[in-house]
Amino acid sequence: MKNNGPLSGLLVLDLTRVLVGPYCTMILSDLGARVIKVEAPGVGDDSRSFGPFVENQSAYFMSLNRNKESIALNLKNEKDKKIFEKILPKADILVENFKPGTLSRWGYGWESLKDKYPKLIYASASGFGQTGPLKELPAYDMVVQGMGGLMSVTGQPNSEPTRVGTSIGDITAGLFTAIGINAALYNRQKTGKGMYLDIAMLDCQIAILENAIERYLTKGEIPKPMGSRHPSISPFEAFKTKDSYIVIAAGNDKLFEGMCEVFNLDLHNNIKFKTNADRNKNIDELKKILEIKLQQNSTAEWCKILEEKKIPCGPINNIKDVVESPQTEARNMIVSAMHNKIGKFKMPGNPIKMSLYKDPTTRGDIPDLDQHREKILKEFDI
Amino acid sequence: MKNNGPLSGLLVLDLTRVLVGPYCTMILSDLGARVIKVEAPGVGDDSRSFGPFVENQSAYFMSLNRNKESIALNLKNEKDKKIFEKILPKADILVENFKPGTLSRWGYGWESLKDKYPKLIYASASGFGQTGPLKELPAYDMVVQGMGGLMSVTGQPNSEPTRVGTSIGDITAGLFTAIGINAALYNRQKTGKGMYLDIAMLDCQIAILENAIERYLTKGEIPKPMGSRHPSISPFEAFKTKDSYIVIAAGNDKLFEGMCEVFNLDLHNNIKFKTNADRNKNIDELKKILEIKLQQNSTAEWCKILEEKKIPCGPINNIKDVVESPQTEARNMIVSAMHNKIGKFKMPGNPIKMSLYKDPTTRGDIPDLDQHREKILKEFDI
Repeated sequence: MKNNGPLSGLLVLDLTRVLVGPYCTMILSDLGARVIKVEAPGVGDDSRSFGPFVENQSAYFMSLNRNKESIALNLKNEKDKKIFEKILPKADILVENFKPGTLSRWGYGWESLKDKYPKLIYASASGFGQTGPLKELPAYDMVVQGMGGLMSVTGQPNSEPTRVGTSIGDITAGLFTAIGINAALYNRQKTGKGMYLDIAMLDCQIAILENAIERYLTKGEIPKPMGSRHPSISPFEAFKTKDSYIVIAAGNDKLFEGMCEVFNLDLHNNIKFKTNADRNKNIDELKKILEIKLQQNSTAEWCKILEEKKIPCGPINNIKDVVESPQTEARNMIVSAMHNKIGKFKMPGNPIKMSLYKDPTTRGDIPDLDQHREKILKEFDI
Repeated sequence: MKNNGPLSGLLVLDLTRVLVGPYCTMILSDLGARVIKVEAPGVGDDSRSFGPFVENQSAYFMSLNRNKESIALNLKNEKDKKIFEKILPKADILVENFKPGTLSRWGYGWESLKDKYPKLIYASASGFGQTGPLKELPAYDMVVQGMGGLMSVTGQPNSEPTRVGTSIGDITAGLFTAIGINAALYNRQKTGKGMYLDIAMLDCQIAILENAIERYLTKGEIPKPMGSRHPSISPFEAFKTKDSYIVIAAGNDKLFEGMCEVFNLDLHNNIKFKTNADRNKNIDELKKILEIKLQQNSTAEWCKILEEKKIPCGPINNIKDVVESPQTEARNMIVSAMHNKIGKFKMPGNPIKMSLYKDPTTRGDIPDLDQHREKILKEFDI
């Protein structure tokens, strides 16, 4: 399948595994780049052993590595190094998420490559970055979710530690790495120069702390988990209805007034609830009043009524609900790719919809470990 | 302050407000672009009224809008439209996060601009996207966190609805929009053409659902919140210690064996815990065994011992801990910018560290509403 997109014609040498790196190179592939994934011989990407499994194949691995080619190379072995060094000069982008120092030990650190390949864009994603006192430490998503402060503001008040239900530590860093690589590509077009990118998962956690970090930096407050409540906008949380919950996010005075009209409640003229600052102060009282009203109808009924008045609201969907939503289908957000053993496999699509390029409903094949060795050796004249 | 980076020399016309759009244009600014923020006269960006406040200035707004210039324009007013249309031809990138259709009504939809400005990159970020049955609905972060399935997998088992403690619905979409814009810039260098980008917050939520969505797509399972536990890797969660909690993420067999050696526990040879699949099955039993051991020391003591053996682990830091961490300082992840009333203001830095460009400790000034009107009118000869 020809890979069409802004990055078509570019070659990514993908030395990544598990999530942060593979998520980044998946995006590069969705944008049109060709990705050659270099995996450790024998076991391959660690995530090939992560569940859920379909016929012994990791659905976790498959969902992240569609449309990549796989070659198994031991970068400490002389013969494999020769193969790698034949591909390297053709690469536009090298992405890796080893612990800092690993590739340098094998002779492939940025310092060794930059003079030989001045146009190469070399991106390293790691737990703590290439600098600083913690740089040597290994990290996984959970470690940076914990250390980066996000877990300290996620959960119910006084509950056990609560992780974000997806690996946001990895994914956020994968996204920032993809931004850096694309900016570096633009820069290379202008200047002819490649560059090195150093992305730390922990840094990315800090970059997404939003008002929580401002609360500390400006007031010295240490924010705590607040369940579903937003710390500075009210009403902006999940409320109980007759049958389940509804999220209502009336983010400004106009929306609050509109919501009060729907509920036939004269709250927007009440001094306790007039401004967002007032509502924040008196949110517990406001919530009680709203939940009495909301008990009268089901979530679906309330959504219909509120949506008519353009009040931001919605149900708390489970994964089945969101996968089966007509909006998800209309947006082509579930796509498929073929695997040579299990056939057609479904996974999330690309949320970057571009007027110049089609958003195909299928992606290129999912590779078995070392599946493309012969093809690559032949193509690169090895 | 000269703005240096891969995007320097580019002009962003920023029609965004609150979070998804401003987060995206903040990244573009950090990458070197010049950002002119067009705000509604009188009130400006909604987030100017979101707490926390410092001397009546919104810290929320300030943290997202450093290094942008502000001009207040009513895009429905003829006089203001003329000003806008003088700036527009100079813009490389237009970013907006109005409800779909709003800018078209004002005469500035992509359809009206694309022929006149064929090099313009025009990015729309919205709740549900420009297409599909839900496109007309308004959204805020909480709404898409609820509708996109993320809340259904975040929280303690059977707890009240739990939101991710940061506005990950907005931020993720801001990141994908920034990726799309940078890829479009590279594409424009190659082809001379601008393009339209349509990013939906809901799509982005689907794109980050990781193994939760694969569980449903491949097995029909509907995943539920699991507290701090990872659904397919074990051990990978928060454990109780003598004084608090420790996150341990022993993501493969080798790390698990290393962890067992540290604890002097012969678990890696036990048939119940030999492989990741075994450990996933018997995680409750494993957790009990580990927590008996972990009760012997404090979190800090265990971190020191485990880190020596390179076992991924860490404390659950609060926001103060992470802000004051030497790693945060070493990585320049807290930067500052000036505000003309309150002086120096601190906020998160840029996690994209680039070899070709410095990562300054300060950013350009934070704008008051309409602060740059005179300067802009003069510069654009209006």
